[in-house]
Amino acid sequence: MVSLQKFCKEKMELSKRVPLMLLFGWFLFALHAGSISAERSTYIVHMDTTFMPKALASHHHWYSSIVDSIKPIGSTSSSDGHHSKPILLYTYSNAVHGFSAVLSQDELQAVKRSPGFLSAYSDSLATLDTTHTFEFLSLSSTTGLWPASKYGKDVIVGVIDTGVWPESPSFRDDGMTKIPLKWKGTCEVGQEFNSSLCNSKLIGARSFSKGVIAANPNLGFLTMNSTRDTFGHGTHTSSTVAGNYVEGASFFGYALGTARGVAPRARLAIYKVIWDEGRYASDVLAGIDQAVADGVDIISISMGFSFDPLYRDPIAIASFGAMERGVLVSSSAGNAGLRRRLHNGIPWILTVAAGSIDRWFAGILTLGNGLTVTGWSMFPARAVVENAQLVYNKTISACNSTQQLSIGASYEIIVCDDTWPFNEQITNIAASSFRAGIFISDNPRIFESESFIYPGVVISSTDAREVINYALTAGIEATASIEFQQTFVGTNTAPVVSSYTARGPSPKCPGVLKPDVMAPGTLVLAAWVPNRYAARIGSNMFLASDFNAISGTSMACPHAAGIAALLKGAHPEWSPAAIRSAMMTTANPFDNTQNPIKDNALDFKIATPLAMGAGQVDPNRALDPGLIYDVTPQDYVNLLCSMNFPRNQILTITRSSKNPCLTSSSDLNYPSFIALYTHGAMGILVQKFQRTVTNVGKGPTTYKAEVMAPKGSVVTVSPDKLVFGQMYEKQSYTLTINYSGDENEPVTFGSIIWVEDNGKHRVRSPIVVSPTVELW
Amino acid sequence: MVSLQKFCKEKMELSKRVPLMLLFGWFLFALHAGSISAERSTYIVHMDTTFMPKALASHHHWYSSIVDSIKPIGSTSSSDGHHSKPILLYTYSNAVHGFSAVLSQDELQAVKRSPGFLSAYSDSLATLDTTHTFEFLSLSSTTGLWPASKYGKDVIVGVIDTGVWPESPSFRDDGMTKIPLKWKGTCEVGQEFNSSLCNSKLIGARSFSKGVIAANPNLGFLTMNSTRDTFGHGTHTSSTVAGNYVEGASFFGYALGTARGVAPRARLAIYKVIWDEGRYASDVLAGIDQAVADGVDIISISMGFSFDPLYRDPIAIASFGAMERGVLVSSSAGNAGLRRRLHNGIPWILTVAAGSIDRWFAGILTLGNGLTVTGWSMFPARAVVENAQLVYNKTISACNSTQQLSIGASYEIIVCDDTWPFNEQITNIAASSFRAGIFISDNPRIFESESFIYPGVVISSTDAREVINYALTAGIEATASIEFQQTFVGTNTAPVVSSYTARGPSPKCPGVLKPDVMAPGTLVLAAWVPNRYAARIGSNMFLASDFNAISGTSMACPHAAGIAALLKGAHPEWSPAAIRSAMMTTANPFDNTQNPIKDNALDFKIATPLAMGAGQVDPNRALDPGLIYDVTPQDYVNLLCSMNFPRNQILTITRSSKNPCLTSSSDLNYPSFIALYTHGAMGILVQKFQRTVTNVGKGPTTYKAEVMAPKGSVVTVSPDKLVFGQMYEKQSYTLTINYSGDENEPVTFGSIIWVEDNGKHRVRSPIVVSPTVELW
Repeated sequence: MVSLQKFCKEKMELSKRVPLMLLFGWFLFALHAGSISAERSTYIVHMDTTFMPKALASHHHWYSSIVDSIKPIGSTSSSDGHHSKPILLYTYSNAVHGFSAVLSQDELQAVKRSPGFLSAYSDSLATLDTTHTFEFLSLSSTTGLWPASKYGKDVIVGVIDTGVWPESPSFRDDGMTKIPLKWKGTCEVGQEFNSSLCNSKLIGARSFSKGVIAANPNLGFLTMNSTRDTFGHGTHTSSTVAGNYVEGASFFGYALGTARGVAPRARLAIYKVIWDEGRYASDVLAGIDQAVADGVDIISISMGFSFDPLYRDPIAIASFGAMERGVLVSSSAGNAGLRRRLHNGIPWILTVAAGSIDRWFAGILTLGNGLTVTGWSMFPARAVVENAQLVYNKTISACNSTQQLSIGASYEIIVCDDTWPFNEQITNIAASSFRAGIFISDNPRIFESESFIYPGVVISSTDAREVINYALTAGIEATASIEFQQTFVGTNTAPVVSSYTARGPSPKCPGVLKPDVMAPGTLVLAAWVPNRYAARIGSNMFLASDFNAISGTSMACPHAAGIAALLKGAHPEWSPAAIRSAMMTTANPFDNTQNPIKDNALDFKIATPLAMGAGQVDPNRALDPGLIYDVTPQDYVNLLCSMNFPRNQILTITRSSKNPCLTSSSDLNYPSFIALYTHGAMGILVQKFQRTVTNVGKGPTTYKAEVMAPKGSVVTVSPDKLVFGQMYEKQSYTLTINYSGDENEPVTFGSIIWVEDNGKHRVRSPIVVSPTVELW
Repeated sequence: MVSLQKFCKEKMELSKRVPLMLLFGWFLFALHAGSISAERSTYIVHMDTTFMPKALASHHHWYSSIVDSIKPIGSTSSSDGHHSKPILLYTYSNAVHGFSAVLSQDELQAVKRSPGFLSAYSDSLATLDTTHTFEFLSLSSTTGLWPASKYGKDVIVGVIDTGVWPESPSFRDDGMTKIPLKWKGTCEVGQEFNSSLCNSKLIGARSFSKGVIAANPNLGFLTMNSTRDTFGHGTHTSSTVAGNYVEGASFFGYALGTARGVAPRARLAIYKVIWDEGRYASDVLAGIDQAVADGVDIISISMGFSFDPLYRDPIAIASFGAMERGVLVSSSAGNAGLRRRLHNGIPWILTVAAGSIDRWFAGILTLGNGLTVTGWSMFPARAVVENAQLVYNKTISACNSTQQLSIGASYEIIVCDDTWPFNEQITNIAASSFRAGIFISDNPRIFESESFIYPGVVISSTDAREVINYALTAGIEATASIEFQQTFVGTNTAPVVSSYTARGPSPKCPGVLKPDVMAPGTLVLAAWVPNRYAARIGSNMFLASDFNAISGTSMACPHAAGIAALLKGAHPEWSPAAIRSAMMTTANPFDNTQNPIKDNALDFKIATPLAMGAGQVDPNRALDPGLIYDVTPQDYVNLLCSMNFPRNQILTITRSSKNPCLTSSSDLNYPSFIALYTHGAMGILVQKFQRTVTNVGKGPTTYKAEVMAPKGSVVTVSPDKLVFGQMYEKQSYTLTINYSGDENEPVTFGSIIWVEDNGKHRVRSPIVVSPTVELW
């Protein structure tokens, strides 16, 4: 509900197309989430297709006939004329088998009695994984993977999101070759969207709104009834994964340079499933289902469904079918931070955490005595603060009251003490007659998520001592200048795990360590829509930009998707699990100072795999991982079978009428290890894992295990040497964790690295011992 | 004093390098203008060099010996240690003969007794000709004059101003060839200025500060003791006259395009004579004197000395010597508007008025009902105002009170009635919670001079009726969007005489019609300094830009100077008077609708030559004027002799010991005609003018006179046909104005056009009958 309120609040501030009606619709929607009227609401129904009558031509006919066969029951008082009978919204037949429909409770019961019925649940709400703040990412320069994959040339990435702004220069097709023949998608015509807006970069565009319309029966129209993005999120994620080269891109002068997607030559197919009016599982399912049918290779989906178990999570369900067809789905871990609400912790997809990058947006503060301090600033204009009269005065420097600040009206720039939140201080300065503020803070969250509405800089408490000393000594002669729009690269330690990234274990499936990897998510610069603000100045001035720097796991996900697309281009034969394995076992747990990556949410303590998975993605090493932990669809079924879900719920995901649970195993052949214990129940925990690795390097070769056991655990590996005669040969081993518990450190972690004898490959998997998490 | 106060006010707001001391200095200076202390102040002394003792090696030795010979008299109480004896500031020996020195009254008397003394006067103050508002100019595209002059390739333009920002891209030397050998100037090293900052575009840089330092004896240091510009004015004028090509120049997104000077291949030599600390005649004299010595071909000087008669006006004095050496001086008419305070009305220089251009900076207003209105806006950012809730409400729409405006706080954009000044309304909106304002005004001055501190548009009263009608009809459903940073070219009538441009007759010499021509001066886009604001947002946010759009005759002057430079390049043999004649007789009195040019200060009545001279400069026609009205230095001397100035004052200008007044004539061979009458003394006025024209076209040829007599006058021309046997042949004619007076129209005007028989050349001169003006 928190993220929904946040979204509603934002809608109030920003979307004014149909202001009163829309807001009303939103509140209605917020209050009755998913339940539109007393009579009917949208349900997603999963079916076992083996029950389909042979006479019918297609799944669609079958699902239609089921809905048609339901006689309108009850709800005779439907005076508003809406939904006087059941309405079929979508039929899903690619990644998902089933349909969504607007049904009353009685009608739902009728559907449940239909042969082949597997499961049904209410339409649910997605959360977009963007913190509403400014960010940036430095995309890596040309590496081994780019040429090896021809920059993703023949790979098609489906982006399931808020749509796209097709005129953004990131979606121009200069330098793109002919669209691959396998492409079966289309460029849908809609409001302010004609088919000529697609090209050989933006090869497809579709929108799915039946769910949102059904959920908002009083809504006269959609504000933008087409794939056109009115939000910015989808334009940002799409251009991050595969945007073309754009020179002179910047966030109001910060991060100025050539923008490009991770896979700059890959194709984009856009599936709009998120609307100004709402975000519904039925639409999301339809989008993924269609993307798979259209022939995408990779799916990037920067949203998630919290609190839904796997069998009710549209992403989990649809991505199973995608995985079966060889389509890797990259998803975001969510922005819940330490609240242990990681979503998308789905075993058959890639779950991406967010980290920082090595850029720093600065305002350079120069005092009248010549002292120079590099502070943090993202004030979105080239402000002039030149030899401004500086004051520091204990009476007013809390900067917590505009009235108090008026005492210093004869000065132009004030040093604010670190005794009040930065956000409130800068708002007070903006309302005062000061021309700029100097803020003191060592809180790293300011540098990943705060907007800068007024000229100023944030400096460290160490630097602040000198600044204050100068201000007090120089008195009325004290002056300071600030130079804005400064960008530094490589000067700060990075990556650092972002404070907002959601931490594992996954409440959907705690036995599989999630997230899988970390990718850049903080202050990522990518394309934006021109009619929604990218920055604010003062209280009421909103500024547009073709590029925006924002933060979130939503921004990390398309980075991982882009890398997956490049790997798919370089290794078309790899399964989704192989691609994920390559990304995980080559991920880097160290930062650019060669020290273990730290966690921004935990006072820069060393980050655990529950925050960042195997570590920061390393595209070039992933090209040549040495060994692969592969997983077959059946392996995932066996895992599901171990989870004690009812058969129908499992079939909802697996879409098979065969008894899926002939084998059941919670021990997935995953490139990471997690041993869970119940908090309070201390004592010895022994967990044994079975793994099989495939040699994707040239054989013959030999690997030896190098183990770093988690503190308080003994880890044994058997055998500790793997000998491969040739390429694609498989070898198995067991890993056993003997955990004896540590009250002071609930989460402990280590790793196993299979080191090739010639030193060429190091295949690393994280090992975690963690308290378990309540299941969704 | 008005412009000084304005400058002081601006200094208070902006220059904060040594804030308290500087402001104190400024007020002191404002109160005691030119008189620094009770004891001594700076005097400019002109000398007759024929009195120089033959034993002395140079003028400098002579002037030094004069100052040295003065024994400190009086001022024994000089307890501050300043100026305990006379100090020689500059010696002038090129365009000017004499020196400036800090002298007491007694010491001045001693100087006056020196042999060869001509005249002496207190150092005086220059006024910069910029209105402090936003503007832009569309430079003409490639024309005949550019190739004919090789874009001014070998011409050197000296700019006497506030210095230059050498790092501005306008001063890069890409595409420039080797510096002409005639160049004798230098690139002075100074504060933040080393000689490597000059190049083959910016070939010289010098600064002259002895006058300002002498006038401010308590000043410890200059804020920028070098040719570096801290103001922006000199950088703007320099780049206007001869800036190199710069792509992507804009004023915060408005007027986006490739910037360039009028003579993009001419060279620039910068003479800084205006300082943050003051602007003194002694420094200006030194700058012009040195420019002439250095070998400049053209001088551009966008400043003037009001209230000084010719013999005390440093620009008049120094430009006489420049003219004698073949250097044309282009100057600005001043920004006094209708107040009849045209400065630089000096017979031997070019005096330039300012007009508008055919560009329009817009915000496009779109109402919820689809109606679109193009309003005026220069809000300096890409604001987002999208489907904002619109209100018009008589109670609050005066927008004259922030308190009243708070009543409409639930709305986002308000229509403000045309009942209160725009400037105050936009300030009130900025302080309110509204996101934008719609202002109504038909006052054309807003479009030449107002800054836009908050999102909004100015619309006409005609458009306003529809907007208000919609707002009232649609009620709470009313919405509006505004798209900013829109630029239109060619849509508005232009040029129009700017409201601010100073009107003739010239109080320095009313018998010569001034100004001479009009050039673009309103909203001219040119280079700017990065550390002084180019725009303001809200009350206190100041923004920098590499380019600024500002208005003033200061901006018109360098356009004319640039054209003069091109003409000098095409016709190296032409005298300054010939260049001026070509520009005047080919100037266009019609606007782009082929109607007479209108006057923005006079409700769009037809502009008189007292506002715009001969009309808008037309560079390509000036290349080939057909006939030339040439003037020799002696002609100017004869004019001076007719003005009843004492002999010494005349020698101050002419620098000759010969009796200069053997001949005296008020009838200068000028390409324009003005007959003056004394207001109240109505009756018949007969004035006869003698003119001689030189055929600079190919001969033989014949011209016939086409006369448009001013209303209430009879004009006769004799002969009315001029036959030329060959090129460079001269022919004379007389023109007689018989004016019988018209109480209702004090100023009447017409023209004489010498039309070549083959129709190729039309040589036009304006004729004015005007009340005379009080002499300075």
